[in-house]
Amino acid sequence: MTPQETAKANLENLYRIFTIPEAPDSTLGAIDQAISRDVAGFLQAHIVALERSLEDVERDFADPAIPEEPTFVSEYTEFIKEKLVAHSVHTAAPGFAGHMTSALPYFMLPLSRIMTALNQNLVKVETSKAFTPMERQVLAMLHRLIYAETDDFYRRRMHDSVHALGAFCSGGTIANMTALWTARNLLCAPDGDFGGIAREGYARALDHLGCRGLAVFVSRRGHYSLTKAVDLIGLGSDNLVRVDTDADNRINLKSLRQQIDRLRDEGIRPLAIVGIAGTTETGNVDSLEGLADIAGETGCHFHVDAAWGGPTLFSSRHRHLLAGIERADSVTLDAHKQLYVPMGAGMVLFKNPVALRAIEHHAAYILREGSKDLGSHTLEGSRPGKAMLVHAGLSIIGRKGYELLIDLGIDRARMFAGKVRDHRDFELMTEPELNILTYRYLPDWARRRMEFAGVGVRQEANSILDQVIRLIQKYQRESGKTFVSRTTLQSARYGQQNLTVFRVVLANPLTDEKIIDSILEEQCRIACREEIQDLLDALGALLEVDPREES
Amino acid sequence: MTPQETAKANLENLYRIFTIPEAPDSTLGAIDQAISRDVAGFLQAHIVALERSLEDVERDFADPAIPEEPTFVSEYTEFIKEKLVAHSVHTAAPGFAGHMTSALPYFMLPLSRIMTALNQNLVKVETSKAFTPMERQVLAMLHRLIYAETDDFYRRRMHDSVHALGAFCSGGTIANMTALWTARNLLCAPDGDFGGIAREGYARALDHLGCRGLAVFVSRRGHYSLTKAVDLIGLGSDNLVRVDTDADNRINLKSLRQQIDRLRDEGIRPLAIVGIAGTTETGNVDSLEGLADIAGETGCHFHVDAAWGGPTLFSSRHRHLLAGIERADSVTLDAHKQLYVPMGAGMVLFKNPVALRAIEHHAAYILREGSKDLGSHTLEGSRPGKAMLVHAGLSIIGRKGYELLIDLGIDRARMFAGKVRDHRDFELMTEPELNILTYRYLPDWARRRMEFAGVGVRQEANSILDQVIRLIQKYQRESGKTFVSRTTLQSARYGQQNLTVFRVVLANPLTDEKIIDSILEEQCRIACREEIQDLLDALGALLEVDPREES
Repeated sequence: MTPQETAKANLENLYRIFTIPEAPDSTLGAIDQAISRDVAGFLQAHIVALERSLEDVERDFADPAIPEEPTFVSEYTEFIKEKLVAHSVHTAAPGFAGHMTSALPYFMLPLSRIMTALNQNLVKVETSKAFTPMERQVLAMLHRLIYAETDDFYRRRMHDSVHALGAFCSGGTIANMTALWTARNLLCAPDGDFGGIAREGYARALDHLGCRGLAVFVSRRGHYSLTKAVDLIGLGSDNLVRVDTDADNRINLKSLRQQIDRLRDEGIRPLAIVGIAGTTETGNVDSLEGLADIAGETGCHFHVDAAWGGPTLFSSRHRHLLAGIERADSVTLDAHKQLYVPMGAGMVLFKNPVALRAIEHHAAYILREGSKDLGSHTLEGSRPGKAMLVHAGLSIIGRKGYELLIDLGIDRARMFAGKVRDHRDFELMTEPELNILTYRYLPDWARRRMEFAGVGVRQEANSILDQVIRLIQKYQRESGKTFVSRTTLQSARYGQQNLTVFRVVLANPLTDEKIIDSILEEQCRIACREEIQDLLDALGALLEVDPREES
Repeated sequence: MTPQETAKANLENLYRIFTIPEAPDSTLGAIDQAISRDVAGFLQAHIVALERSLEDVERDFADPAIPEEPTFVSEYTEFIKEKLVAHSVHTAAPGFAGHMTSALPYFMLPLSRIMTALNQNLVKVETSKAFTPMERQVLAMLHRLIYAETDDFYRRRMHDSVHALGAFCSGGTIANMTALWTARNLLCAPDGDFGGIAREGYARALDHLGCRGLAVFVSRRGHYSLTKAVDLIGLGSDNLVRVDTDADNRINLKSLRQQIDRLRDEGIRPLAIVGIAGTTETGNVDSLEGLADIAGETGCHFHVDAAWGGPTLFSSRHRHLLAGIERADSVTLDAHKQLYVPMGAGMVLFKNPVALRAIEHHAAYILREGSKDLGSHTLEGSRPGKAMLVHAGLSIIGRKGYELLIDLGIDRARMFAGKVRDHRDFELMTEPELNILTYRYLPDWARRRMEFAGVGVRQEANSILDQVIRLIQKYQRESGKTFVSRTTLQSARYGQQNLTVFRVVLANPLTDEKIIDSILEEQCRIACREEIQDLLDALGALLEVDPREES
């Protein structure tokens, strides 16, 4: 071929990828059809259960060079199937009860494809059109779930360019950041000669307010995104005050009051109190009424991180746990958690529909003042139309469907807790208030002895148990049949010592009693491995019992 | 039914949406198949060309109540088809050359479905497994495209837990924020008694540095996300210094030096200089070598916003335009722009592979120190596996394929510019340096008169032309056949007056010469409307010509 012919052929190949669909019988077309027909079957068939070491997987993703020449789609698809899909995590598997990612309702997949095919950009109406009103409606629906304002309130504000009931975003972290950023800008608003923090910056704002710093208060169970947020917005993580919790992992209101006073004495002004509706590790809910009272007295912003627990509001039986959330100035929700939407969908709702003006930004080519472009009050810029999937979930599942899901998860968490409590080899560490619980491996013979052991021996015994639990969790994950996560917690029973615990999240409706039993059975089986038995022998020696005789 | 029976039936319905796929002949199944077969045809058939007013569309998304009862998937799908899809923007249409969202290569759709089906969470290895090494590889590939370090450099750092070559995110805005946040934390790092800005906050950091504030410098063409970023991280937008540009929309280096000196005299320290590789409005590239020199002299961070222009590096013919980018401390890239990936994929790359430690955050249950979890150094928390689609693009299209796309876009922008230049009714406002140009409607008779008109008359004439251009753009958008965007710019030819201009982005490879001609033809046709002719008559009266005689 002459250079001209080669150039023409290359260009034709290029056009082809933009104009000719994958044939249904091609490698990629066949996978696509298989997923359409039966996604669960596809995942089951293609994800390899047995874990390959990360170092081993890394070898397939080791070349830093971008390939010079194009690759055939079929060839690439084979690579993806064998090297990526095979060694992904089966997040939808009912036995994987250790993380906050559950199975997805089937309709989410074809609807996601419509969303991707439309490829709208929600930053401005010009590239999103009907998606903009739809996102505003979704925000109104969830605003109403929390704040239950009148129909007239929503009629007048939902689609109005000067109001915003909230901001859609990629997840709870951005939602929490948006809330604290807004709170900061509201507290340090333009005032007389002071042009506002958004223009003049944080140091000038402190001068204007006449204080040494601003602080955010949250319990020790607060999500790490809050640490990131106070770093990001300039307060510094020393000014994220971690307040003690009660035995039930809820913020201690008395400690909170003391901390607020202490910081005030140091010239630090309270910016916001953050209540948690569903802590990441234990699923507990702070006393939101109590926090609302204190925020009211203190005159600071009250934010509720309901990324996990927000959808509990769907449940007539359990929504009382979140009483007081309607008094929050802002609330974080994650749709990719208990709204069962694919990864990458969060929201922050604001009680006051003009609050978000505090972070408004405009530009000449888009987001002109007075436009309904959503991008003028979001932290992110270009964004996909994920709100469509929330809209679909709310419509197709409905309030009652979500209620069923919430009730089911809480019932099963209680059932799981009951089984742990009755089991001779486990210890329940935190009772499920929502659908999360923690527990650990602790054989009955050891528990009985530890009750009467001295502090030093108990601490040493707990260290051995930490190792046991880490190993059980690791081997369980590696065998790929069931999965629980682990974290470290303190427990009133054991003083200030950090203990390693199993953490279980019961949000997948397919995680039934049979699967719960199999999770515990597998852990007991793993505990019989020699490596772990050696540790238990050491524990026995420490506690002066012979485990093999006792069990 | 008894209450028990109802409860059981409800639960069974709920299980169904998690276990039974949509039948291929169901409403949703049929759409899914139609998109698989031919997405372009689907969009063409279902998106209504003629624009419905936004207020009208809003009526379909007006109910703030979450439905109590579930809705059938088929019923909901009909709603989506008629009310959402029909009134979306046809971003993939070759005639829609006004925004930065182009058509997608066909393989992106089935691969997106695989990504959604796997529903990984990239925040931690535990929920992403092979996706984590893959994302690290993608970051290394793009790092190498910019910085071209040795193979050994990448071998040692790509998969290493203490290094990060960059951070993947939802888009260029978060990428720019991450860059400036990191730069801020590096400048205000822990030092002696000072615990660092991440812990102690911005005001203490300024005390420590002994200055009144920190400033970021960028040209007047800088993206609005930078204003958001300096607000967010506490500097305040007054400290985003907008430097003058030359006639070619590139930053004026002399002005930049003067501004840096001026702020230094005021006790404001330069934090970062931001160079633009492809301005959003005009597609121009700053002198990155010149900026790198000044950043070096100044001792500040040098960031390049290459969200648009970064992929120009694929082109042997045009990559010289970005010379100096390899001297940047950090670079923003958007994959959903010229890497042709669906909405929601951006990146920031860092020259120094330990820079991102400045924003590292850990938590007990995930992101433990020493882990390879990506979430420890990203602004966002939970994130989808979008990197997979970048990996696919780089592999399937290859360096040479992207080169073709880049070259094609620039060639066509030049062709478009030539047509505008030769046309008696248009004026080219900015020459395309990459694949973006701006122009406006200006009939020949008016141009000739305006050259000799006084300043006042010229300004008045330009105001009339602004109205003409806004109307043409509006009617063109509403008719739904072709689309260009609009913005306001100053031009050396017309002094300090802000002028409304058409803006064209030529990134869709299907936007060929025929379509370019039809865009201009349609604009001329719209100009014949009475409403616009009246404005042109007024322009004629002002300039003392009779348009109807002249044209």
